[in-house]
Amino acid sequence: MHTVNLSEKFSLFSDYWNPRVIGEVNDTAVKAVKFTGDFVWHHHDNEDELFLVTKGTLRMKLREAGSEREELVRAGEFIIVPRGTEHCPVAEDEVHCVLFEPKSTLNTGNIVNERTRPVLEKI
Amino acid sequence: MHTVNLSEKFSLFSDYWNPRVIGEVNDTAVKAVKFTGDFVWHHHDNEDELFLVTKGTLRMKLREAGSEREELVRAGEFIIVPRGTEHCPVAEDEVHCVLFEPKSTLNTGNIVNERTRPVLEKI
Repeated sequence: MHTVNLSEKFSLFSDYWNPRVIGEVNDTAVKAVKFTGDFVWHHHDNEDELFLVTKGTLRMKLREAGSEREELVRAGEFIIVPRGTEHCPVAEDEVHCVLFEPKSTLNTGNIVNERTRPVLEKI
Repeated sequence: MHTVNLSEKFSLFSDYWNPRVIGEVNDTAVKAVKFTGDFVWHHHDNEDELFLVTKGTLRMKLREAGSEREELVRAGEFIIVPRGTEHCPVAEDEVHCVLFEPKSTLNTGNIVNERTRPVLEKI
């Protein structure tokens, strides 16, 4: 059991959209991920996801009640996307993000494509 | 569903050792708490706790395998205290901390005293 430094963890990798596991607390995995550009619209049937931004500005596109909107999430801010909600993370510049979600959560939710990461590295 | 700014949440209260709920993600509560001085030695039988520091330096005292040690947790760092581990948070100066733990977790774990907060305010 040791202190985890977020900046140090983010310094260990440079690729995008490829979350690493940096901690486990109860059934929740803590993941570090770098974003740039657009991800893919998806949802998670049974899992809420928390996105805590530590660098940059995340633009979280959301579809709710048939309409589309977005929330900006800056360093020192988080957003919780409830299960079932269609969302698409977008980052104009590099974003560092800490995710809190169940260990079982697949990064692309209901979508499987070239960005799906079924197995995550622990760092 | 809206972005949550951590600094703004911490500006809404000034008392110590009294966690507020600032989010819920699956079975996990996200709590904001300010520490100063010593808390109480305790453990949680069935719950891991994650302490993410956003201001100040948390000194986490730990008892493991019959001996006592401590971990320093600074802003931008976290520590996960596994279930069953005796711990005592200490803050020489004010610390702002975000907790990730089950919604059911009692702040003083197996101890009930004047610092126990059975019901937490949502802010």
